[in-house]
Amino acid sequence: MNSPMFSFQWLPFVCLIFLSSVSATLINIPRLSPIGGKFLHDLETVSASISDDLKTFYYDQTLDHFNYRPESYTTFQQRYVVNSKYWGGATSNAPILAYFGAEAPLDGDLSAIGFLADNAQQFRALILFIEHRYYGKSIPFGSREEALRNASTLGYFNSAQAIADYAEIITHVKETLHANYSPVIVIGGSYGGMLASWFRLKYPHVALGALASSAPILYFDDITPQNGYFSVVSKDFKEASETCYQTIQKSWSEIDKATSQPSGLSNLSEEFKTCRPLSNSSELKNYLESVYSTAAQYNHPPDYPVTIVCGGIDGAPSDASILEKIYAGLVAYRGIRSCYVNEPRNISETTVGWRWQTCSEMVIPIGRGNDTMFEPDPFILSSYIEQCRSIYGVPPRPHWVTSYYGGHDIKLILHNFGSNIIFSNGLRDPYSTGGVLGNISDTIVAVSTVNGSHCLDILFAKESDPEWLVMQRKVEVRIIKQWITKYHADLLAYKK
Amino acid sequence: MNSPMFSFQWLPFVCLIFLSSVSATLINIPRLSPIGGKFLHDLETVSASISDDLKTFYYDQTLDHFNYRPESYTTFQQRYVVNSKYWGGATSNAPILAYFGAEAPLDGDLSAIGFLADNAQQFRALILFIEHRYYGKSIPFGSREEALRNASTLGYFNSAQAIADYAEIITHVKETLHANYSPVIVIGGSYGGMLASWFRLKYPHVALGALASSAPILYFDDITPQNGYFSVVSKDFKEASETCYQTIQKSWSEIDKATSQPSGLSNLSEEFKTCRPLSNSSELKNYLESVYSTAAQYNHPPDYPVTIVCGGIDGAPSDASILEKIYAGLVAYRGIRSCYVNEPRNISETTVGWRWQTCSEMVIPIGRGNDTMFEPDPFILSSYIEQCRSIYGVPPRPHWVTSYYGGHDIKLILHNFGSNIIFSNGLRDPYSTGGVLGNISDTIVAVSTVNGSHCLDILFAKESDPEWLVMQRKVEVRIIKQWITKYHADLLAYKK
Repeated sequence: MNSPMFSFQWLPFVCLIFLSSVSATLINIPRLSPIGGKFLHDLETVSASISDDLKTFYYDQTLDHFNYRPESYTTFQQRYVVNSKYWGGATSNAPILAYFGAEAPLDGDLSAIGFLADNAQQFRALILFIEHRYYGKSIPFGSREEALRNASTLGYFNSAQAIADYAEIITHVKETLHANYSPVIVIGGSYGGMLASWFRLKYPHVALGALASSAPILYFDDITPQNGYFSVVSKDFKEASETCYQTIQKSWSEIDKATSQPSGLSNLSEEFKTCRPLSNSSELKNYLESVYSTAAQYNHPPDYPVTIVCGGIDGAPSDASILEKIYAGLVAYRGIRSCYVNEPRNISETTVGWRWQTCSEMVIPIGRGNDTMFEPDPFILSSYIEQCRSIYGVPPRPHWVTSYYGGHDIKLILHNFGSNIIFSNGLRDPYSTGGVLGNISDTIVAVSTVNGSHCLDILFAKESDPEWLVMQRKVEVRIIKQWITKYHADLLAYKK
Repeated sequence: MNSPMFSFQWLPFVCLIFLSSVSATLINIPRLSPIGGKFLHDLETVSASISDDLKTFYYDQTLDHFNYRPESYTTFQQRYVVNSKYWGGATSNAPILAYFGAEAPLDGDLSAIGFLADNAQQFRALILFIEHRYYGKSIPFGSREEALRNASTLGYFNSAQAIADYAEIITHVKETLHANYSPVIVIGGSYGGMLASWFRLKYPHVALGALASSAPILYFDDITPQNGYFSVVSKDFKEASETCYQTIQKSWSEIDKATSQPSGLSNLSEEFKTCRPLSNSSELKNYLESVYSTAAQYNHPPDYPVTIVCGGIDGAPSDASILEKIYAGLVAYRGIRSCYVNEPRNISETTVGWRWQTCSEMVIPIGRGNDTMFEPDPFILSSYIEQCRSIYGVPPRPHWVTSYYGGHDIKLILHNFGSNIIFSNGLRDPYSTGGVLGNISDTIVAVSTVNGSHCLDILFAKESDPEWLVMQRKVEVRIIKQWITKYHADLLAYKK
């Protein structure tokens, strides 16, 4: 069903959300990136086919757009990448498709995010990828070490500054190309999708429209119930297999039972072939929780990781114990390895950067009630604030996202305001519970797929894509074309 | 025609834009305040009639909304004032009319801005006045001296921070009153009008609509021709009196001629009864330019200051010299005083604060070409930048306003984006050249009056108001009522 090779390939992403210095509440917030699972697998091949047309540039970016202290004027080099192969040019006001980097270096996006390259030709569009500040090669203060030193240098690392960066770079690119009237469509996934939708709302003079893929803009300030995320994870497993779901549900108390035995942790370590002995049962539980939620979030065709996990669990010998079944599910998912759990690994830029972002601005209150296959673990804001404060010395501002971008009563507010945003979601993606799943107006619309997973629509199209995915992308392209056609007509009338 | 008493009363405002330490280019940018001219005259009487219903509060405001450095979390006390006498209450979702303070202490606004109090009863509205950071009693860093010390403390003094302040206070007031579904209409004049319109665009989830009175949001980044302001000043004078216009036009070279005579400056000082001897002819020219532009900007009924000035000039004895006529115009306008020009005066908060604002963010390129009654004086951005840098140590960001708020091709951009903004202007106001004078969409509309002056519509209504002013206010009230009616219907449907 699944090859160990494949499972091995996507190991780095599974583990990103573990970080020993961070306490339980913090690590329970799943990452918000478009790329997960097997897509890393494809990076090298895809890279080779597109890299020739990509040109890399650096923009002298302002450190602080919203302040005039002398330090605010400091600049840093921000990376962006252009592909003009398909562009129809400035004289025909041909469009620009601009991808917003999220909480990772841009390199992975260039190889995985296919929506732009797949559609550039039919749009005669310029392709622009912009890296998010504090990631990859777009680091202020001269070095990553300096940039991440403490809250004094991290303070500039937030979404309002990031989208102001994007506004400046897009404007700069348009000026450079004398393409002032080329419509810009911004595209992002997950956190980057939030940025894209917020960008259209805040900078309508820079972007004509936004495709916000799997953007949980409503997972703030308790607009979405805390348990949304893990309810969907559980539902995904339940729909894949009722017995699998029940096995997982029962496993947590089995782990407790095993732990409470003499030499319990040591036996558990042996049973799960942990890379180093478990020092408590939470190490194992957190690891498994992460496996299940990652499998659900990136539950993409043609392999469907949730099906793979449940295949392992349900396929174990009928006399296997619950924990033996869980282990079999783990092996099915991760492939046959020398060890599992507590694996040695490098801490990625995403882990470090996203931890700051979720501890300052992006406070996403994901908790678990009694309605999941997991143990209850409510999100307690006050504890969260204290944890963040103890790490960084400054507390999060949990209400800022809704203060600045809105979110409460979004249909009431945006029904008569704004236009040209697509919120796309796959309903099997646990983050879809924080997404916009219904049309807000004629031009702020939702495009959801029942079987889709996280950010699937903006990844490279493949032969094996199911019909519903092909259709989803077609609908999105059709809507964006309508925006551009209307814009060109408006422009003609305006210039008369 | 004009009483010396009245002219004397509004002296303080005429002189606000003079500041000896600032060079010519900087002082040539007229102030952008709703209150000018004779309205100070009315302050005390009006105050007495409304003060009983006003309650003053202070909000613990965040110093920097867009940064997470430890210093950003510093707070200061921001003043706001509430009048709930007419409010229909939270249960009926009765509206809130919120006035945005501009570049002055709030006290003057409370007594002069009548739109809210005049209409609160028919709207059953709560009245809220909020003071702008760094003015009045809303000063960070513990004292004005500290707050204005240098760019490091002034850096937080800008429009993006100011409207984020307003968002927080409005949200706080609504929460305190359990009035989450009360629609908020924000109102501002001049710079405050820009803030109001930008607020509706950036915070549609906080304000349902905006009345932006005399807001020159297009006087940035050369969207509006530099000479717009002084062209209108000249036109106002020409329309009042062709001979007056010509006398003023000829006066500049007469001043030069007089200056070039032996003891020329000393004779001029005597002729104009200057409070201290002129040290150069620019002191006199700048003073007169300011008198004419202020008269034009605040050219309000029933007295019409431009008519008063021209009455003095044209009414001088037929054998009077050009400079004698100019002096007669000055006396007519200012009243009989012991001296004129180089008057001893205190430097106002507005002068100091607005100088920083125009030298950092609010770069309004007002210059003069050959088409006015003034001497040519083009706006040269590079010199302006250097002047500001020499004063504050940091240069302005002349393109930031249009980067953040837009402005270029506003009709193209906002025709399909946003809603519920009234841009009101009086076409005799020289700042109207940078205003929005045509409808952008069905709900982003312009309400202009041919004879109106700066911010007239939001001042207290008076018995003597001409019919066109009464009508302008009626139109504005009718439009705002439509927004609120539609909102209440939407709310009903939404809550079903």
